[in-house]
Amino acid sequence: MPVGTLGSVKGVSQDVLEDLGVEILLGNTYHLFLRPGVETVRRMGGLHRFMSWDRAILTDSGGFQVFSLNDLRKVTEDGVAFRSHLDGSPHFLGPEKAMEIQIGLGADIVMAFDECTEYPADAERARASMELTLRWAARCKNYFREHKCEVPWAVDAAELRSAGRTNASAPTRASAMSGSGALPRLDGAEPRHHTDANQALFGIVQGGMDAALRRESALRTIDIGFPGYAIGGLSVGEPRELTRDIVLSTLEHLPSDQPRYLMGVGTPEEIAQYAQAGVDMMDCVLPTRAARHGLLFTSEGKVSIKQARYAQDESPLDPACECRVCLRYSRAYLRHLYASNELLAQVLNTVHNLHFYLATMRAVRAWIRASDAAG
Amino acid sequence: MPVGTLGSVKGVSQDVLEDLGVEILLGNTYHLFLRPGVETVRRMGGLHRFMSWDRAILTDSGGFQVFSLNDLRKVTEDGVAFRSHLDGSPHFLGPEKAMEIQIGLGADIVMAFDECTEYPADAERARASMELTLRWAARCKNYFREHKCEVPWAVDAAELRSAGRTNASAPTRASAMSGSGALPRLDGAEPRHHTDANQALFGIVQGGMDAALRRESALRTIDIGFPGYAIGGLSVGEPRELTRDIVLSTLEHLPSDQPRYLMGVGTPEEIAQYAQAGVDMMDCVLPTRAARHGLLFTSEGKVSIKQARYAQDESPLDPACECRVCLRYSRAYLRHLYASNELLAQVLNTVHNLHFYLATMRAVRAWIRASDAAG
Repeated sequence: MPVGTLGSVKGVSQDVLEDLGVEILLGNTYHLFLRPGVETVRRMGGLHRFMSWDRAILTDSGGFQVFSLNDLRKVTEDGVAFRSHLDGSPHFLGPEKAMEIQIGLGADIVMAFDECTEYPADAERARASMELTLRWAARCKNYFREHKCEVPWAVDAAELRSAGRTNASAPTRASAMSGSGALPRLDGAEPRHHTDANQALFGIVQGGMDAALRRESALRTIDIGFPGYAIGGLSVGEPRELTRDIVLSTLEHLPSDQPRYLMGVGTPEEIAQYAQAGVDMMDCVLPTRAARHGLLFTSEGKVSIKQARYAQDESPLDPACECRVCLRYSRAYLRHLYASNELLAQVLNTVHNLHFYLATMRAVRAWIRASDAAG
Repeated sequence: MPVGTLGSVKGVSQDVLEDLGVEILLGNTYHLFLRPGVETVRRMGGLHRFMSWDRAILTDSGGFQVFSLNDLRKVTEDGVAFRSHLDGSPHFLGPEKAMEIQIGLGADIVMAFDECTEYPADAERARASMELTLRWAARCKNYFREHKCEVPWAVDAAELRSAGRTNASAPTRASAMSGSGALPRLDGAEPRHHTDANQALFGIVQGGMDAALRRESALRTIDIGFPGYAIGGLSVGEPRELTRDIVLSTLEHLPSDQPRYLMGVGTPEEIAQYAQAGVDMMDCVLPTRAARHGLLFTSEGKVSIKQARYAQDESPLDPACECRVCLRYSRAYLRHLYASNELLAQVLNTVHNLHFYLATMRAVRAWIRASDAAG
């Protein structure tokens, strides 16, 4: 899942994302809560309609950003008081609030509010944090059950029906969305979903770097019961091998017939390994953030396009790649754009890295199908 | 002509420019001379091939930037010594050097090296400056005549023929250029032009804000003889009405059966007015630069998209516009992207403004055809 922090994958327009074959985007609740605010997104019909994106969206709970972007946070049983990283204004997020916000944003998949246990954490601290996340998970589920019908598209549909609005009163928007097409949108008459559709709430496994705690967290989260489960609290500074051990041992305890989502991972090699190990979903800022810093993933390894060695290199960035960047531009041009601080560098680099990640996942899916056929 | 200062229209990829119907781009010799340097562009086969742009390119002479970006410049009969605005390194541009660079860049239309007379300038200064520009114009024409066969694509063609290179040794690049298609490029076998093709060198009329001097400059530049003529030295701080007077009075003296190019102009209203008055070509950073500052041109006037009034405005930026931005996104989304400093704001805003300018010019062309038919 490419990361679209603020309702936009930085520098890439939605039609290009569709062309790239992106099927699901991640939006960050923390960032959208601060800008433009959930009330704005709700009034605009939800995040899909606000950003003109028909395909799937997942929003995280905001927990990770509250913990990683706020040194002055205060954690209580009810949630986390914190200050905006933008203007220092005081805010509060807890299980109920995180659900309320995510219902207002209206993504297809929403995440329980968890405490991301810091690394390192001693045994007592890791258990206490895990127990808090479990209590919050139950509260999230309860709030979600009672309020899930309040998604903006449901409200829209009811309002529209009672008001009898037609296309005539809405802005004309011949869909520019070449890749999707199926669902009429933004025309004011047909909301994206039926009123009886709602979101899927996933639970999150914590437990620090302790395999036994992870097992307990997984089993007790399953006891609460969710349609999908995430492995959280990783990529927080621990060694890569430890991440791998925890992921693999936790995966064993999660039902293989429900989505298993590994949060915040990883390199192309890692996403291939984890997908082959049974992870169904991953998100990471790496392809997009690295692209903006000139670090590009290719079939021949990483390329730091800022290097002078590429200044007169006429070959494509990745000769094996069929993305629109590699088909059209040379390393020399990409190097020039980056060295000259041209906006287009960030745009093209991001398109390539996203393509590389998506192609990696396509290859993994083909591998899985072949394995299934052989097995 | 959209401005692609450094071989890129900031934030907009070449396939989008093609979709927008851009037929010719302007590149800035001064900027390309400093980054990536003419030798790199030449070795990459010229600017078209370097940036993967099959359609027309015009390069300016660098004179305007030398005068506007350099306070410590030193003007002599031979040219201008100046320091790079990037790192303070010393450089020199004069008529011969400007020709050498522009031949190396290989644009379709290149401009004579002129002195852009500052505003205000007294009568003596305006005449001296005009005379210098005329002497430089003759030197440009002489140098160009002797060296015009040195365009990179000509060298390429000769080299390629003698080396007998084929497609097999070159990177495979199935053209991603939906809009052009005609000219095979970047395949190492078929250079863009035949060796006997070369560039068109345009002369530039100066003369400050004095109609008589402008007339003299026009007539004496025509005496030197060029395939097209530009009106330079405007938009340098003078009142808009004075610009208009000078443009109209100068146009009278330029042959109407050759291209007449007004440099650095202007607003949508101005480009429509000047085109109707007989100007054939214009360039301006306004649509692209204004877009990056959130100032958008619409059929209902200018929109400053940063304003809070648009925060929950579901309507398209310009209901009368059919660009991919107006067909897909709301003002609320564009406002959010801008307020959140998202890269995509600059991308989408630029696409819209370029579309608006190009649509303005299409309307002008239709008006001209209708006038011709009626007349």
